Amino acid sequence: MPAMNAFYAQSGGVTAVINATASGVIETARKHKNKIANVYAGRNGIIGALIEDMIDTNRESAATIAALRDMPGGAFGSARYKLKGIEENRAEYERLIEVFKAHNIGYFFYNGGNDSMDTAHKVSLISKKMGFPVTCLGVPKTVDNDLPVTDCCPGFGSVAKYVAVSTREAACDVASMAKTSTKVFILEVMGRHAGWIAAAGGLAGEGPGEPPHIILFPEVPFDKKAFLRRVKESVDKYEYCVIVVSEGAAYKNGTFLAEAGTRDAFGHAQLGGVAPVVAQMVRDNLGLKYHYAIADYLQRSARHIASATDLKQAYAVGREAVKLALAGKTAVMPVIKRTSDSPYRWKIESAPLSRIANKEKMLPKRYITKDGFGITNACRRYLAPLIAGEDYPPFVKGLPKYPTLKNVSVPAKLGTKFVV
Amino acid sequence: MPAMNAFYAQSGGVTAVINATASGVIETARKHKNKIANVYAGRNGIIGALIEDMIDTNRESAATIAALRDMPGGAFGSARYKLKGIEENRAEYERLIEVFKAHNIGYFFYNGGNDSMDTAHKVSLISKKMGFPVTCLGVPKTVDNDLPVTDCCPGFGSVAKYVAVSTREAACDVASMAKTSTKVFILEVMGRHAGWIAAAGGLAGEGPGEPPHIILFPEVPFDKKAFLRRVKESVDKYEYCVIVVSEGAAYKNGTFLAEAGTRDAFGHAQLGGVAPVVAQMVRDNLGLKYHYAIADYLQRSARHIASATDLKQAYAVGREAVKLALAGKTAVMPVIKRTSDSPYRWKIESAPLSRIANKEKMLPKRYITKDGFGITNACRRYLAPLIAGEDYPPFVKGLPKYPTLKNVSVPAKLGTKFVV
Repeated sequence: MPAMNAFYAQSGGVTAVINATASGVIETARKHKNKIANVYAGRNGIIGALIEDMIDTNRESAATIAALRDMPGGAFGSARYKLKGIEENRAEYERLIEVFKAHNIGYFFYNGGNDSMDTAHKVSLISKKMGFPVTCLGVPKTVDNDLPVTDCCPGFGSVAKYVAVSTREAACDVASMAKTSTKVFILEVMGRHAGWIAAAGGLAGEGPGEPPHIILFPEVPFDKKAFLRRVKESVDKYEYCVIVVSEGAAYKNGTFLAEAGTRDAFGHAQLGGVAPVVAQMVRDNLGLKYHYAIADYLQRSARHIASATDLKQAYAVGREAVKLALAGKTAVMPVIKRTSDSPYRWKIESAPLSRIANKEKMLPKRYITKDGFGITNACRRYLAPLIAGEDYPPFVKGLPKYPTLKNVSVPAKLGTKFVV
Repeated sequence: MPAMNAFYAQSGGVTAVINATASGVIETARKHKNKIANVYAGRNGIIGALIEDMIDTNRESAATIAALRDMPGGAFGSARYKLKGIEENRAEYERLIEVFKAHNIGYFFYNGGNDSMDTAHKVSLISKKMGFPVTCLGVPKTVDNDLPVTDCCPGFGSVAKYVAVSTREAACDVASMAKTSTKVFILEVMGRHAGWIAAAGGLAGEGPGEPPHIILFPEVPFDKKAFLRRVKESVDKYEYCVIVVSEGAAYKNGTFLAEAGTRDAFGHAQLGGVAPVVAQMVRDNLGLKYHYAIADYLQRSARHIASATDLKQAYAVGREAVKLALAGKTAVMPVIKRTSDSPYRWKIESAPLSRIANKEKMLPKRYITKDGFGITNACRRYLAPLIAGEDYPPFVKGLPKYPTLKNVSVPAKLGTKFVV
């Protein structure tokens, strides 16, 4: 078979290590020029394919592709753009295949979360039906760590490390000021439905009484009375209280503590601002002085404190996706399989996209302490290796240095315009 | 003269490197046992002296004192507790001298900001009057960088580095998502009256158009129309807009954008939450999707990304304060004197506390671009060396490792209790 091109796209919220995956895909493809002539990257993810604006990665030097691993965010642009059911979105799927055909694209690597695995799966099906079968690989990426089957998701380990480190550092600050100043410190972290990121904050404390004193998970219905009692206990005992709260913390009836009312392109409720809600609760009911931080994008872009384990895995899933594709597998995703907690050992296997698409993996009950405010030892055993190791980007003049990409478009071949 | 003891206290908001200063004070004092028998550290700052609860640092090993440089927050506890005028607070000043006398304390090292320099100055005066002259040294510390005379303040370089790095990282994230998601990202940083920290965000971008696109300084009256116009321009041109806003950003009439109405122990207005105010303005007037982060304590405790320059200077002011004291100087503070921008060169001199106490150094006009939304090259030249160099703390199991202090109290000698 003559060499074909590959299409690689980043999808959904970006991470500190998604570009390491891109590096893994492109570097591995370059080793197999006889099969993959070029990797085209979608400018702004899948949109780049739909509007036929793809980036020619062959124009980037080996040094640039290697340096992608040091750069947070999405080097080619990502998109929150969901291709829904084939029936409702037939035109888009058909357009995709039309573009793939025009550019001799036989491989599709879709680097994203649950929604993207669904899309990759559907593209695989429809491409066959349309007589231009494309080898479709999902490549896992999500800070939320909520993909099933895989032991963990690239992107998560680094945000977990950021949250654990930040919690430990801020706790030193609060502890030293509590006598006369802030008693309650609240750190708001991401995690719409799954509490993995909030749980990682729990790694900051190792012994009993060590902060954080309270974690609020989306998986545990918020009990205001129990929460306030716990805050008071902590302040009475330690003079301060450190709280890590997930943006997805919700009441028993499902109402988010911070319901913003707006929705993103995927139809998910857009959250933010649970910290001030919790803070006001503490002030109004306990009269305690508080401070809060909202980590927001800082947590998922903090390449400077990325987990070395996470970086390795992010690169590996990119590399293995290409290998799987070259081995003739399609509609699968490389998954991380843990073989040992300590010493931590893992390998890459593959799983069908149909088992992964549109499913969310919540924090299991056995990872949350009975009182609902902390993590168990089983959870620590799971999380600890994921934040292990530091892998600092290069710094120049005190700032992280990122590669400068040319990001040159592949000339369009279709005369038609497509509006997304 | 027989050896006397020293009293060291941390004051006000802590920093990522204040313990490096403590390390500098204690290690230097230990080299001069013939003059300084022991360094007593105030448990919770000056309060520890007032209630006669001081920590015996001789009980800590050399390794622990050396490792203080790796730990953020205040190792002995700090306090927001201001000793006001001698007339209103005579009892407190007298108590302080009484405690110093009882514990043979001939040296007072007060590690803080403007208010603390005032206190150290007053203690120097009153101790002489009371016939027990204490050698009083101010030791600079403030993330706000607002102390006069000194070229910069230990603590600032690290928060500056954190803000510059975080801005650069988050900008990568936003830029890659802007096509379909967040267009405007706002990072709220500290700086009640002085815009030094916000200015540091400006280092994230080097070329024209590079983020941050807008900085809102406390020194520049907020002009809503001009601001919104600039946001729109940025989104039109680059598809996104990154904003760094100081918590102290205010309207022309002095009203803070985020007036919280509460006040801290020093009587300063307590701020927080300017980011959501700015975000809502952007949404309501331009209809753009936004995200915001509030760095809060994370920025001043981020030892993991501390500036190597800052750490060196933090240690140096501690060391030099002891040397000045041993040389018979009193009522002075070691100040950092810059002798060259590039290569960066600095040395330590000393300045009388009377020149420093209760004065704030604002961002000079020549450091702010004419439009009021950016920093000038002169500002870059000033800031750049302060964030230079990385000096990571040791990590164990993916988390920074801090020393465990014994923090044993010196037995009280006075029979009297003092209520603060």
